[in-house]
Amino acid sequence: MPKGKVSRASPQRGEFALIKSLRVRYGSEDSGLIRGIGEDAAVIKTPTPDWLVLTTDLLAEGVHFDLATTAIEDVGYRAAVANLSDIASMGARPRYLFVALAIPPAIDVEEIQRFYRGLMQACRPFEVHLAGGDTSASIRDLFISITLTGTVEEKRALRRDGARPGDWLYVTGTLGDSRAGLMILTQARQQSARPVSRPRRRAVDRFLLQRHHRPTARVDEGRWLATTGLATAAIDLSDGLAGDVRHLCTQSRVGAELDRAALPISRSCTMFARRRALDPADLALTGGEDYELLFTVRPSDRARLERQATRMRYHCTCVGQIKPASFGVQIRAADGSLRPLVTESYEHFRTAT
Amino acid sequence: MPKGKVSRASPQRGEFALIKSLRVRYGSEDSGLIRGIGEDAAVIKTPTPDWLVLTTDLLAEGVHFDLATTAIEDVGYRAAVANLSDIASMGARPRYLFVALAIPPAIDVEEIQRFYRGLMQACRPFEVHLAGGDTSASIRDLFISITLTGTVEEKRALRRDGARPGDWLYVTGTLGDSRAGLMILTQARQQSARPVSRPRRRAVDRFLLQRHHRPTARVDEGRWLATTGLATAAIDLSDGLAGDVRHLCTQSRVGAELDRAALPISRSCTMFARRRALDPADLALTGGEDYELLFTVRPSDRARLERQATRMRYHCTCVGQIKPASFGVQIRAADGSLRPLVTESYEHFRTAT
Repeated sequence: MPKGKVSRASPQRGEFALIKSLRVRYGSEDSGLIRGIGEDAAVIKTPTPDWLVLTTDLLAEGVHFDLATTAIEDVGYRAAVANLSDIASMGARPRYLFVALAIPPAIDVEEIQRFYRGLMQACRPFEVHLAGGDTSASIRDLFISITLTGTVEEKRALRRDGARPGDWLYVTGTLGDSRAGLMILTQARQQSARPVSRPRRRAVDRFLLQRHHRPTARVDEGRWLATTGLATAAIDLSDGLAGDVRHLCTQSRVGAELDRAALPISRSCTMFARRRALDPADLALTGGEDYELLFTVRPSDRARLERQATRMRYHCTCVGQIKPASFGVQIRAADGSLRPLVTESYEHFRTAT
Repeated sequence: MPKGKVSRASPQRGEFALIKSLRVRYGSEDSGLIRGIGEDAAVIKTPTPDWLVLTTDLLAEGVHFDLATTAIEDVGYRAAVANLSDIASMGARPRYLFVALAIPPAIDVEEIQRFYRGLMQACRPFEVHLAGGDTSASIRDLFISITLTGTVEEKRALRRDGARPGDWLYVTGTLGDSRAGLMILTQARQQSARPVSRPRRRAVDRFLLQRHHRPTARVDEGRWLATTGLATAAIDLSDGLAGDVRHLCTQSRVGAELDRAALPISRSCTMFARRRALDPADLALTGGEDYELLFTVRPSDRARLERQATRMRYHCTCVGQIKPASFGVQIRAADGSLRPLVTESYEHFRTAT
């Protein structure tokens, strides 16, 4: 799921409470629905070896994206990646895309074409087909609704609730780059003059902006984890590691210990953080929209996972271990001390208080 | 598809042009996609006797609904019916519902619960299950994205492009009630004082408001037409008969002759129109959101259709006949004269001109 950039609140409130109340009230008893509300995507049983996976997202201008700092092609690209990532986190193969737009008068057809261009660029590596949608007017803001279907082999779908104490916690790629890119954008917008920029600094910024505008959906990695059965649980990092590890732990009814020193952080992100006197690990923990996969692996499968990842050139890093629920979610600092993990996650919808 | 109440433009422009350009550019060559962009819903081939049907809609506050005149329960009800109707127009059985909302600060959780209540009330007769979705913030307006899946027996799906010259044109239910209900709402809003109202007039208004707020999705009729193979083509009336008969004719590459005197109009709608010195047939032709089915029947099947409809108590009325494309779309007046049908249809998205 995408995250709100504007509205932040404590987790377990607002959205999560609403979703929970809906699950209780309207939750399906239907035997064809393997997984529904609360997961990244729904899994629908079909009388075939493959199950249908479906995810839907609604993106609001001014909340999920800002056309003042982001080219509309990149809005399309990121919208596609957010949904591809939901499908990846289920270990499914993405198939058909449906796009509904509510378009304000200020946006013309040429811009909409550019939006679709970015969207389809993100989809192309995975042979996803645009299969339908809806186009309507909006009074002020652009709203984008994306529905993406996928298929996954029966009973192979990755899930959030399978982690067990002792399992190792892994993430793909590097963390915090997207957040750093967003900070660069926000600063550039606040400063009227362009910052004085040395060539090396420009390269760092370019990398981080690229990671923000054009993140990678880990579809191949998800397929690998699903088909090999190596992952006991998985979730995609849309809200940030600190928030998403908690979601995974809550649904698996376990705790976790993260290792601060082990978090995979790119050289650019480290340089950026140093420049701002920030701890890069904080960016890695709280930065949303990395769209990396967080997954758990049985202790007995760890060597096989590492071996296969190396051979396939999938960048996977062990960042901690699953603990019993009573342990909670804690993080080990560089000095070896353990502290409860403070969740600073994104929240979409805030109840009036 | 729902229609924009605010933006109107000539058809074949704006939305239709945009959809067409997208179909050309990104249209699927995928053999698993039986029908895609341009239909009410996509049909996806699965290796089972059933095909998957999927429709998605995006509704914008101030464009597709107005919370000043419509209770939020009814917004939910109508949003569900619009999508159920898309599934019905394919002859499919609706199955799973996905709802994404972008919620402005002015709307609280209790109102969202009421929205869902209306939504699920419309779904209940059809055993549709709420299977997932997304909730996020919106700065000003409420946006609702609905995705509904359905299933239909292989090759039985109703389509828009199967009408042939000589086929009879039928509609379910009565036409124009929803538009009349909308006019009552709009007037009530414009008048500061309540209109002086006689009991009989109040009953008329109540009926028309009910038809506007709680239209009927013709799912059972769609299933009947699909399973019996009686309909050569079908479309649901969301834009209004005049606009939708044109869509059906364009996709079937045929013309049509409508019979003005044959249009099924409720007694309430006739009384309402008389009160306003309007021709009820104009309401029936141009009123959107009736969500009735318009379908075509081979001449040889006409008697069978009428017989079955009577037995099943499905209200179906013959309103004209399919003609060759060169005939265009014309309407026969009460005096027997034929005139080209003026399309006054709803258009969602207007290109800047």
